Amino acid sequence: MRIQASELKNHIGERVRVAGWVHNLRLLGKANFLLLRDSSGIAQVFMDKTERQQVEGLLPESVIELEGTAVPEAQARGGVEIHQPVITVLSPVLEGLPFPINKPDLEAHLDTFLDHAPLGLRHPKKRATFQLSAGIMAGYRGVLGELGFVEITTPKIVESATESGANVFAIDYFGRPAFLAQSPQFYKQIMVGVFERVFEVAPVFRAEPHATIRHVNEYVSLDAEMGFIRSHFDVMAVLSQVIRGILAHVQETCAAALDLLEVEPPAMSAEFPHIYFPDAQELILAKFGEDCHGEPDLSPQHERWLGEWAKEEFGSDFLFVTGYPMVKRPFYTHPNPEDPTYSNSFDLLFRGTELVTGGQRLHLYADYLSALAARGMSASSFEGYLEAFRYGMPPHGGFAIGLERFVMQLTRGQNLREATLFPRDLNRLAP
Amino acid sequence: MRIQASELKNHIGERVRVAGWVHNLRLLGKANFLLLRDSSGIAQVFMDKTERQQVEGLLPESVIELEGTAVPEAQARGGVEIHQPVITVLSPVLEGLPFPINKPDLEAHLDTFLDHAPLGLRHPKKRATFQLSAGIMAGYRGVLGELGFVEITTPKIVESATESGANVFAIDYFGRPAFLAQSPQFYKQIMVGVFERVFEVAPVFRAEPHATIRHVNEYVSLDAEMGFIRSHFDVMAVLSQVIRGILAHVQETCAAALDLLEVEPPAMSAEFPHIYFPDAQELILAKFGEDCHGEPDLSPQHERWLGEWAKEEFGSDFLFVTGYPMVKRPFYTHPNPEDPTYSNSFDLLFRGTELVTGGQRLHLYADYLSALAARGMSASSFEGYLEAFRYGMPPHGGFAIGLERFVMQLTRGQNLREATLFPRDLNRLAP
Repeated sequence: MRIQASELKNHIGERVRVAGWVHNLRLLGKANFLLLRDSSGIAQVFMDKTERQQVEGLLPESVIELEGTAVPEAQARGGVEIHQPVITVLSPVLEGLPFPINKPDLEAHLDTFLDHAPLGLRHPKKRATFQLSAGIMAGYRGVLGELGFVEITTPKIVESATESGANVFAIDYFGRPAFLAQSPQFYKQIMVGVFERVFEVAPVFRAEPHATIRHVNEYVSLDAEMGFIRSHFDVMAVLSQVIRGILAHVQETCAAALDLLEVEPPAMSAEFPHIYFPDAQELILAKFGEDCHGEPDLSPQHERWLGEWAKEEFGSDFLFVTGYPMVKRPFYTHPNPEDPTYSNSFDLLFRGTELVTGGQRLHLYADYLSALAARGMSASSFEGYLEAFRYGMPPHGGFAIGLERFVMQLTRGQNLREATLFPRDLNRLAP
Repeated sequence: MRIQASELKNHIGERVRVAGWVHNLRLLGKANFLLLRDSSGIAQVFMDKTERQQVEGLLPESVIELEGTAVPEAQARGGVEIHQPVITVLSPVLEGLPFPINKPDLEAHLDTFLDHAPLGLRHPKKRATFQLSAGIMAGYRGVLGELGFVEITTPKIVESATESGANVFAIDYFGRPAFLAQSPQFYKQIMVGVFERVFEVAPVFRAEPHATIRHVNEYVSLDAEMGFIRSHFDVMAVLSQVIRGILAHVQETCAAALDLLEVEPPAMSAEFPHIYFPDAQELILAKFGEDCHGEPDLSPQHERWLGEWAKEEFGSDFLFVTGYPMVKRPFYTHPNPEDPTYSNSFDLLFRGTELVTGGQRLHLYADYLSALAARGMSASSFEGYLEAFRYGMPPHGGFAIGLERFVMQLTRGQNLREATLFPRDLNRLAP
């Protein structure tokens, strides 16, 4: 029966079997050490001059199984060391690694790391990063489940673009043109008509033909949509609960990963503060001296400034910006009834970068027809989607969190590619 | 504060606010009834001659909000009825439905239903079906989480086909050829090198150009992969736990949906029985009179016969068939060391239909090079994937469960499209 490295301390004095990767070998002569890495951590193995013959010539990352005796040893990790090992090689490595993965930090250049991700991801800090990613997904589903949201799975091969016609990947679908979904937007709205509250965790595809440190062309979107709201503020209230719930879950289930990555817990005020888009522009002028009045969106620098302000003013790493101008938002966006130049939409900034986009949607069939006509779009391209509204939809809204963005901002990463398991960008399609 | 229909019984005597869809209207004269559907169920509203004027002309599926008094009424669902309603229309429906959704069964032809899925999915039995789907996913993640599996998200735009070159959707990736992933096979194996045990719930894409009742071209695959196994039997043991765990979770969380759909709980013996592929062929000859010796796979009819036999012989709706011939399995399949014509692979049949495919994979780099060479495939097309094996991989294996298949077989559906939210097939790309 194999045990994990982390369980050794419960087997002092026993013969045990462990298995894993050769993380490091220090062959010093009389005293020789093998560090064995498994999914739980690292086990230290002591070998004398004779025993070390079993590992001579063995290269790092070889996979071995070994039997040995668990012995207390204050100097070793976890206070246990394995003595008198009998080693079986399961999978030998015959060539040197492109970069070491047993140093405290992985020092390879990002592109080199990504080229060799199947190896590089084994580095403990990379593993920790993607444990956080798993923790965020689990936390997300947990909170939404408690709030009565039902999980859905919607098609990624679609007939029409949801966001804009330009940035879609085209595919040949048995001779018909089709696209990869840019978001589950239409489907999650349709499903509000079925379950009232729905969520989906799934890939989305954006054919944006430029490379930036905060975009990739395929990412995981944590989507939610809910019915019977009064305005986008009801959506923001649920989103705040979701963010808090995710962070609490990650804190609880990924403590070791957070420690290893030295993640500073996000600062949160009692309520996430919010600022109306035109007020944000005023603030940027008054406080940071840049006049961005009339601009239809915020630049990354504007977001950073607003993030600084929220931290200073409210002690919060999170800030809602509400009411983005209608002109930059998609056709299904609900206008602000009191000021229809602006919308009932929001972004949630986390440490000065957009993490979530959301808002209230139109819900009346007639409003959809007008909105499409006003943009010169044809209703007939959206027949299935519009059917939901023809047959009765409540006021509703929702949001989409970028999973990799969340991981990046939480770990204060420099590039979204570090937070994406196998990123796809303009230049990268493999591994 | 809005309450749900299911909560009415806790508010007897109070004025309450409910909201939802007009499920049915019976305007009889003196006594008039409105059935209001929300995500929790149906509320019955009583209206006298004057009150009914509020709903005259209102078509089914209109969305309304109403305030009224909760009154005990033995004849009504849940023993409560709403009296003295004051109704606000949130979203009126102005045209008749293509088919009624307030009958006990949705009687539309499958194609008509699928054409109007945004409406049809609101039928209580359709909702129940997709609640089961959500329950299966949640159960799956729950069991695997407890067994130490880590959730991963892998790219769906890929450079090379995993299964066979023929059935892939091609996309133009910024001028380079790319494909939609047929499975996360390569990535989940790579990630065994990182986490030992991983799982993913994500769409997969198969460009199979034929229409059958048990195939669609995009479906959700519940994938898992685990390291340090002795053979595929270790994988089968985990899979059995997963299936039992899923069913227990669904039983616990989807009781109403199971009831409504009259789902018969799957019969399970203490252990899922298994039969070796050549023995299955013997059995088919001996018991059902068809000689299929030498055939490299089982036909749907063979699977049905084996399913009958397992039910009769072991009282089990589940049956493992192990050891499929190597010739029909992909290059990464591990041969049976004692009989290398056959493989260390399995299918799990559920009620006589394949539900899961899995097996042990090759783990030695040299074995991959030989397997590719033997099939005339070029190792250079698989560089990233092969890197995992170059740098040490343990013996490992895994499986993939088809989510929609599971729902179909559980509910004894006739067509996979009934168990797929928005199916994609040869002819269908919308809604």
